[in-house]
Amino acid sequence: MARFEVKILGCGSATPTLRHNPTCQVLDIRDTLYMVDCGEGTQLQARKMRIKFSRLRHIFISHLHGDHCLGLVGLLSTLSLHGNSGKITIHTFKEGAEMFQRMLDFFCHNLSVEIDFNIIKPERAVILENDAITVETVPLNHRVPTVGFIFREKPKPRHLRGDMMEYHHVPIHLRQGIKQGEDYIKEDGTVIPNSWLTTDPDPSVSYAYISDTTYYPPVVDAIRGVDLLYHEATYADDSTEKAHQRFHSTAREAARIARDAEVKGLLLGHFSKSYLSEEEHLAQALEEFSPVTIANEGLTIPLL
Amino acid sequence: MARFEVKILGCGSATPTLRHNPTCQVLDIRDTLYMVDCGEGTQLQARKMRIKFSRLRHIFISHLHGDHCLGLVGLLSTLSLHGNSGKITIHTFKEGAEMFQRMLDFFCHNLSVEIDFNIIKPERAVILENDAITVETVPLNHRVPTVGFIFREKPKPRHLRGDMMEYHHVPIHLRQGIKQGEDYIKEDGTVIPNSWLTTDPDPSVSYAYISDTTYYPPVVDAIRGVDLLYHEATYADDSTEKAHQRFHSTAREAARIARDAEVKGLLLGHFSKSYLSEEEHLAQALEEFSPVTIANEGLTIPLL
Repeated sequence: MARFEVKILGCGSATPTLRHNPTCQVLDIRDTLYMVDCGEGTQLQARKMRIKFSRLRHIFISHLHGDHCLGLVGLLSTLSLHGNSGKITIHTFKEGAEMFQRMLDFFCHNLSVEIDFNIIKPERAVILENDAITVETVPLNHRVPTVGFIFREKPKPRHLRGDMMEYHHVPIHLRQGIKQGEDYIKEDGTVIPNSWLTTDPDPSVSYAYISDTTYYPPVVDAIRGVDLLYHEATYADDSTEKAHQRFHSTAREAARIARDAEVKGLLLGHFSKSYLSEEEHLAQALEEFSPVTIANEGLTIPLL
Repeated sequence: MARFEVKILGCGSATPTLRHNPTCQVLDIRDTLYMVDCGEGTQLQARKMRIKFSRLRHIFISHLHGDHCLGLVGLLSTLSLHGNSGKITIHTFKEGAEMFQRMLDFFCHNLSVEIDFNIIKPERAVILENDAITVETVPLNHRVPTVGFIFREKPKPRHLRGDMMEYHHVPIHLRQGIKQGEDYIKEDGTVIPNSWLTTDPDPSVSYAYISDTTYYPPVVDAIRGVDLLYHEATYADDSTEKAHQRFHSTAREAARIARDAEVKGLLLGHFSKSYLSEEEHLAQALEEFSPVTIANEGLTIPLL
């Protein structure tokens, strides 16, 4: 139940290869799935990974390049053919919402899932808040308007100390409030401070998804201290020039962002088709920051 | 050079499975590739099969369901990123051309390939004729307007008989005409009939692609005697009722079409996700017609 997992469905860049699919990730947070980007072939990769989409409620599209969203219509069509129901919210720019709606109208008739669009902008803003998490956008620097997404678990309830509940005879109906940080005020007016009654809650996990972008220090403040930073690393040092020209990052640049933002771990992806392995990316990133994980299709990273 | 091959990139139906991709075939005819339908994941499967798309010149879309065309935009985008050039003609209904153009405008900027649309209608008509082949549409019976495509190699030149060329001293400059069937008229007016000078040409191959449709006997005349008939066989006998409801065919029905059209071979595909193998399809089709081939991803069938 207390789950926060990042699943990699695709970590290639513009063109799929035999090694990597276009971009897609799925976050499994408590009882809900959140998808980030949805490149072509997402539905097939999900099948391979046995991801059940009945719990999918949100899809976030970072920008409107095909390798980040061309799997969307096929995925929603298949969900519908499999009889899924409920509402799925697609978080995307206005022009994306218009285009996806057009495509859904054209290719998918009588969808069994309800599709809702939440229009986002390339700015820093909280775009979703529910019982479990908040999701924040952060603008990036790519050829077209692009945002990163920061997923933060909300603070969790404090743990009641059983011994103190018993010692002070704390009534059951007050315990929920004490979990939320309230003190216990006895009938005679005595105040038992919360810190005597509880221990710290489980940590709240945070995950930042930063793709596609040049090396862009303005994101550092927004992602400071997150538990895991996914940062695109299309190229290695051999193609630093190309990275700049194409508004992408190198692995070393991604690692510098991770270092400056003092994150707890770095996950690299969005690898160019021109590499036969990501050994260079890993070695060069490790010169700047540690720990570094190289994304791969099928990988699941539990943060909790 | 004298090549006519059918390559199966996808032979599943509406939703991709771990066994089958959505529909796509590539015909390799002499020096040109012709694609028929283009489901999601086509570009990746092409990579797996090492199909080089620099020779791709025509894409035929049988109907506008997503599992037959959602791979198109990603494929064209990748062709362009790989620096392909030249013109690709997409043969599709008017509303398809409008939608694909919109999607290309939105997702692909500065395509290096030139895209041209040839508007087809759900009727019997020759829609393409070049030096090598003619392509004919034939209307099918599905939930939306759908056509099959019949590919026919043009008659090939007759073979010159070397002994007769020598014996009659046939001038070089007349031999091309004789290959095309002309008689040889000597200077003194003597006519040497073509049949003495030549032997029959290599056979011209024909291939019919019939998907998606109910059992639909009106196609029989159009496809009579083709060398290979691909016919959809979404279901086996256990789901005949479902096939009719959903405007699809069973393997047995496909085989009856093959038998009545006196084709030389039958290829079955477009298999429903609900089957774990196509053994039933094969056995039931063979009760009506032989030979039968079960399509599979990666299969190449040489007709010549």
